[in-house]
Amino acid sequence: MLPDSAPALGLVKPSVRAAPAYGLEAPTTALKLNQNEAPEDVPEDIRREIVSRALLEPWHRYPAFVPARLTARLAARHQWEPDGVLVGNGSNEIIQAALAVHVGAGDVVVAPEPTFALYRLLTAVGGGRYVPVALGRDFAYDVGALIAAARRERARVVVLNSPNNPTGSALPEGAVRRILDETEALVLCDEAYQDFGGPSAVSLLRQSARLVVLRTFSKAMGMAGLRFGYGLAHPDLAREIGKAKLPYNVNAITLVAADVALDHQARFDERTRAVIAERERFLPLLRAVSGIQVFPSAANFVLIRVEAKPARVVFRRLIDDHGILVRDVSAGPGLAECLRISIGTRAQMDAVLAALDHTLR
Amino acid sequence: MLPDSAPALGLVKPSVRAAPAYGLEAPTTALKLNQNEAPEDVPEDIRREIVSRALLEPWHRYPAFVPARLTARLAARHQWEPDGVLVGNGSNEIIQAALAVHVGAGDVVVAPEPTFALYRLLTAVGGGRYVPVALGRDFAYDVGALIAAARRERARVVVLNSPNNPTGSALPEGAVRRILDETEALVLCDEAYQDFGGPSAVSLLRQSARLVVLRTFSKAMGMAGLRFGYGLAHPDLAREIGKAKLPYNVNAITLVAADVALDHQARFDERTRAVIAERERFLPLLRAVSGIQVFPSAANFVLIRVEAKPARVVFRRLIDDHGILVRDVSAGPGLAECLRISIGTRAQMDAVLAALDHTLR
Repeated sequence: MLPDSAPALGLVKPSVRAAPAYGLEAPTTALKLNQNEAPEDVPEDIRREIVSRALLEPWHRYPAFVPARLTARLAARHQWEPDGVLVGNGSNEIIQAALAVHVGAGDVVVAPEPTFALYRLLTAVGGGRYVPVALGRDFAYDVGALIAAARRERARVVVLNSPNNPTGSALPEGAVRRILDETEALVLCDEAYQDFGGPSAVSLLRQSARLVVLRTFSKAMGMAGLRFGYGLAHPDLAREIGKAKLPYNVNAITLVAADVALDHQARFDERTRAVIAERERFLPLLRAVSGIQVFPSAANFVLIRVEAKPARVVFRRLIDDHGILVRDVSAGPGLAECLRISIGTRAQMDAVLAALDHTLR
Repeated sequence: MLPDSAPALGLVKPSVRAAPAYGLEAPTTALKLNQNEAPEDVPEDIRREIVSRALLEPWHRYPAFVPARLTARLAARHQWEPDGVLVGNGSNEIIQAALAVHVGAGDVVVAPEPTFALYRLLTAVGGGRYVPVALGRDFAYDVGALIAAARRERARVVVLNSPNNPTGSALPEGAVRRILDETEALVLCDEAYQDFGGPSAVSLLRQSARLVVLRTFSKAMGMAGLRFGYGLAHPDLAREIGKAKLPYNVNAITLVAADVALDHQARFDERTRAVIAERERFLPLLRAVSGIQVFPSAANFVLIRVEAKPARVVFRRLIDDHGILVRDVSAGPGLAECLRISIGTRAQMDAVLAALDHTLR
């Protein structure tokens, strides 16, 4: 028997009650292309090196308060300042912390729509007002519309995701600079997929302190399971964002893993180039499949709109008939009948082409 | 050259700007008794078992959206519901999420003082109003005063930490029940140290939904470096708190580690009993050292007040002359001249006694 939950739920913020929970429907399949993960695991020799080094760490001790060696390496990776690096349990944690220190009741967050659902959810948690700005034709960024909305609404934060999840759209060159110049907002650039295409905002950190750039090891570095990401910001701003970041937020083994991964950067870069090459091979072939619309992508995934059948039906048939799991994003705003497909290996994408062709014929 | 940070800092919430950052001064010493960690590392065979099992996991994949096997085991550990278990990157993450979904601008959080600094910091991040209630004589909980403050201030949340960090005070039997009955607040019970003494509020989950109980693997389970904790709440409330918890917040290796640790629960329990036994041996001997006041403790640490010399001086002398690092908490409210000492092995505590005796003589 459980007690009545009504008295407890009445204490939860109304904005949180109204927000849908983040969820994922993910049956086990032979081919998993639903979370934009790397197609292959971290190479076995690197895994073993991580484990060997992890066994040298004391597990009963809290991790270092600031992992100075790692933040210095990450700073060097981007020609940035060590004091301006915040490590996170995935980059999501730094997004969360950055929004938490900026967004209170009524504060406006402007973001493209559609985009990653977490920005809206975290804005709701803060009690802020989320102002989505529709992407343009083929889900291209409409920078003018973002600026107009940010100015009109006196936005405190503009969130950008480039390439954008789930559309694949990259910001045009110069867009972040323009948004910084023409608004007074903090600009939060989530570059989780930037290794796969489009410009980076990192160099703008030297021009404006109203900028936070998020990077992750979950995609191009292939370590989604170990949860590591980081944020780059002006040291003074990083200090404030750090107040909403929990102490000891990255565990000792993941700190080792990130350090070892940086030792092998070239091998991960090679894999990233392979994913990009496969995307470029796959996209024209996908466009040749009848009954779907294919959107341009600078990421390690591609968004399609199914025209011949309901996306929900295609999603299920891909699982049931072909053992292929993609992401059904069709319930999202502006995403009617859309599915998102991660880019894997050539053989995997050939299987997707055959399965789609079979399903849509 | 860095850009001017003033325009960026002007966008940060004033409540955050005003809050001090959580920090830690921790030089490397031979004997580390400053973070209430387990005195010994996880046994080597258990470490190796964790590593072996971790190598079977895919590291390039996100962890399971809900680690169902683990939440079921944790639920069984407390005779609670699997849907009412929230796993966290340390229990701090669940404290953060629980406060985030309850505390907005002006909402009141009542907590004992002194206590763990994070509650005040996270209340500030949410823009809430933190109302500290002084502990009584010898830092004993004053349950009546907590209830009076919660009623007077119409508190949305009452945070309890039992045994309380850094004082060691446990709540009296029946206190949580009384606070639930006599206030309308959500009661957040941080039981990070409960394995070492004092009552648990877990059984009250069946009587009131206005309760969240936090537990951690960082102390009695000796895994502070791997970051694992969890919250127990009514499933309906857990669902709301889950909205402020990041997806995939516990990494794949830590999920394995928690599962393996539960297989060896009896070995960790034995270590916990040894720490408790050492505390009971150590406390009377510590009371015999002249020039300090020793407060009662139900935890794996003890708080002392230095009477003969400034605590700051004793803290430094313990490091410099004896290679012993304790926690200088003397800057905290009500903690003038206080130091906190983790309970370690018998040999370690004998070293502390000798060092204090030498320093204070």
